[in-house]
Amino acid sequence: MSKKLTSRADDYSKWYNELVVKADLAENSAVRGCMVIKPYGYAIWEKMQAELDKMFKETGHQNAYFPLFVPKSLFEAEEKNAEGFAKECAIVTHYRLQNDPDKPGKLRVDPEAKLEEELIVRPTSEAIIWNTYKGWIQSYRDLPLLINQWANVVRWEMRTRLFLRTAEFLWQEGHTAHATKEEALKEAQLMNNVYATFAENFMAIPVVKGVKTESERFAGADETYCIEALMQDGKALQAGTSHFLGQNFAKAFDVKFTSKEGKQDYVWATSWGVSTRLMGALIMTHSDDEGLVLPPSLAPNQVVIVPIYKTEEQFEEISKIANLIKKDLNVKGVSVKYDNRDTHRPGAKFAQHELQGVPLRIAIGPKDLENGTVEIARRDLKTKQTVALDILTSTVENLLEEIQNNLYKKALDFRDSHITEVDNFEDFKSTIENKGGFVSAHWDGTAETEEKIKELTKATIRCIPEDSKEENGVCVYTGKPSNRRVLFAKAY
Amino acid sequence: MSKKLTSRADDYSKWYNELVVKADLAENSAVRGCMVIKPYGYAIWEKMQAELDKMFKETGHQNAYFPLFVPKSLFEAEEKNAEGFAKECAIVTHYRLQNDPDKPGKLRVDPEAKLEEELIVRPTSEAIIWNTYKGWIQSYRDLPLLINQWANVVRWEMRTRLFLRTAEFLWQEGHTAHATKEEALKEAQLMNNVYATFAENFMAIPVVKGVKTESERFAGADETYCIEALMQDGKALQAGTSHFLGQNFAKAFDVKFTSKEGKQDYVWATSWGVSTRLMGALIMTHSDDEGLVLPPSLAPNQVVIVPIYKTEEQFEEISKIANLIKKDLNVKGVSVKYDNRDTHRPGAKFAQHELQGVPLRIAIGPKDLENGTVEIARRDLKTKQTVALDILTSTVENLLEEIQNNLYKKALDFRDSHITEVDNFEDFKSTIENKGGFVSAHWDGTAETEEKIKELTKATIRCIPEDSKEENGVCVYTGKPSNRRVLFAKAY
Repeated sequence: MSKKLTSRADDYSKWYNELVVKADLAENSAVRGCMVIKPYGYAIWEKMQAELDKMFKETGHQNAYFPLFVPKSLFEAEEKNAEGFAKECAIVTHYRLQNDPDKPGKLRVDPEAKLEEELIVRPTSEAIIWNTYKGWIQSYRDLPLLINQWANVVRWEMRTRLFLRTAEFLWQEGHTAHATKEEALKEAQLMNNVYATFAENFMAIPVVKGVKTESERFAGADETYCIEALMQDGKALQAGTSHFLGQNFAKAFDVKFTSKEGKQDYVWATSWGVSTRLMGALIMTHSDDEGLVLPPSLAPNQVVIVPIYKTEEQFEEISKIANLIKKDLNVKGVSVKYDNRDTHRPGAKFAQHELQGVPLRIAIGPKDLENGTVEIARRDLKTKQTVALDILTSTVENLLEEIQNNLYKKALDFRDSHITEVDNFEDFKSTIENKGGFVSAHWDGTAETEEKIKELTKATIRCIPEDSKEENGVCVYTGKPSNRRVLFAKAY
Repeated sequence: MSKKLTSRADDYSKWYNELVVKADLAENSAVRGCMVIKPYGYAIWEKMQAELDKMFKETGHQNAYFPLFVPKSLFEAEEKNAEGFAKECAIVTHYRLQNDPDKPGKLRVDPEAKLEEELIVRPTSEAIIWNTYKGWIQSYRDLPLLINQWANVVRWEMRTRLFLRTAEFLWQEGHTAHATKEEALKEAQLMNNVYATFAENFMAIPVVKGVKTESERFAGADETYCIEALMQDGKALQAGTSHFLGQNFAKAFDVKFTSKEGKQDYVWATSWGVSTRLMGALIMTHSDDEGLVLPPSLAPNQVVIVPIYKTEEQFEEISKIANLIKKDLNVKGVSVKYDNRDTHRPGAKFAQHELQGVPLRIAIGPKDLENGTVEIARRDLKTKQTVALDILTSTVENLLEEIQNNLYKKALDFRDSHITEVDNFEDFKSTIENKGGFVSAHWDGTAETEEKIKELTKATIRCIPEDSKEENGVCVYTGKPSNRRVLFAKAY
């Protein structure tokens, strides 16, 4: 298999698909729409998990685990307030495989082993969790209940793409219960802020914080907060959502509490989640035609050391130095891989680490041995410099910080230069069509106009930005009055 | 709900079930046989995960993630070499729910949305993983492949018990591929040793390492290594297994590699796993009639501080000290909860922390304020001592170490006093019946005798211990010659 990728300019979509596979992040499996997350891709996901988990715990949340299956009847309870809920899901109807009496060596589903009630593989866990919370919440003393779950979920998607849209994916889902509306609203906003901080500081992905319009809301939510990122092809990607669920689920599952004053009331709820989709956002924000580009905070190996040698003696000398460098950097919390494989040439190693986005590559050759130096190459800028061993550790630390900042700044510049204010529909269409990115425009606030614009341009309202100012104007499509711009874009 | 547990002497099984629920570890869910792992229980599982994950990575393994579903045809491939494989499993046959046209407000499975091939929710992942490895392994350069997965699995168990046997459970499953038989055997043994070290050093649970007899082996394995623990009721519990799979799965899924010498051969495999069942082992090894007893290494809170006060001023003074203690202990890596809830009295707090097994409880009252002391209570020995503030941190550190060691020693003494050598079948039966524990006896090596003994006594061969010596003797049941004792016990 050729290691060279299709360029982004030639075919962005093909570039993405090739990169995911060739950089060893993920691949399609024998199961329609389900992916295998390969060790290198999973190591990046683990870094995201660890950081998010820490942030959740610092904001008072605890992890728990709820069943994979949701009985059909619990969906029916939920359906009452969530008419629009997607029903494409994996349904377990039987519980036994047996040898097929008609076909030796083949198995069949035992027709006798039919479940009384079908079980749905969770597409999200509100139903099973709120059914459980009913038993956990009696009094204000039991509130707030601040719980998160790391889990796999399944949605029977017809058109799938690695990380971006898969039938099974990994995610975290927070589900909280509160005594007051104010507290629940604050929680939903807090968690959207946590997501934004995580995306920007850790993933180096600038995001717009905002709320969804009613038609883009999660079914069952009274308000959906979101973070929206912009990919290099000018399409937006919803990177995380946090829902204020009002009392909808409490009512559907009859979850009441007794207040300090002895009054009974339904509890207030939120839910919030991010998924392995973030891997797609990461790839499409930073990477280039040579492959993955990783911010140091997410790189399984922040530094790779490649020895260049002709003789066994040289290799031994280089290895001594490489191991010392590794040790020094490890002490500083920098992760280092010494790639001493004798099965691959340096050129092949360089190509692999470039494809896999290792932020810094250190090469050590015979000349470096003489001079007490190494060569450092930056993955993001593709610059090289020769550095003396005695200042190597601090140089690496500084470079890693620079790379993290540079990637964020570069993505921010791109994003900011792709927010276009438009005031008429011709400009709207041509911007969406030719330039891409976010279009900031006035909208009359109706679902009809939103739907019509989507039909005509494929652009949807990504969010009403949190920081949008009051401003009198007229809807870009209907000309009706509007007092706030919203962000439109084509989206993943 | 009364907080008092049924005593172990009165009804061990009831004691266990009550403890799991009342200590907030887990509970049954709306889905038959599936549990909810509550935040406190999950926090303990997270500690196990973190330590195991570290040990796996230190031994060169990487994590990855494979699909939840296994197409039926892959099971058929596996079945060829695993006739005995359990077929009680959850089967997905359809992919859409829809409104029931005959029953308003109800949902039904869309009869049109039937899958072409049924999908099995993974009971274990050998089939899907080996089908994937086929694409990953071509040459000796791709080996060894050392991969672990943290995942949920489902086995349609008819009789379930929280943590010990549930339809869905959480586990890790390692799946490795090697160029030689020797290397694979070494890997299987290494991972069994990792499990033993983890159980003993981290969970304070002594285990016997050994191999399973042929009839107790994992279907598809050529050798199953295991660790066996002994519960307080004298029943054994298999706490982890590590399988040498020979070339069975490589042959079933046609996974070959080219050696350095250019020869083609099937690869050699291992798989190994531990699950949330370890939570059951933890509970039944250390806990008492007052509730859970946790080794400090697994305690979400190693120390809890409870303030005892009458006035607001006292509360404030105590809180100042408590926060200082917490800070000092945190610096030393000790986890501390300051239980300053004003919704519960000290007595209720003491009872809850005892039930939940917090290793050390520090109480601070008005008298302590005067004297510059606190009262420390040990959960394991139920002893109390007054300690001056200036030596508190080191006292706590020492006590935590003592508790960890004491719990292990206590469990080891119990286990060692419950390994009984017997040389005739009358003694065998009466030991199994009256004393319980492991019975060390000669066995003629046949599956028939093993089966017969099981029928008559319910005892199975837990393992052939790794350290068992050659010793001439006669089978305890048939009188035929034997050269090695094996361990029998009734088991969970």
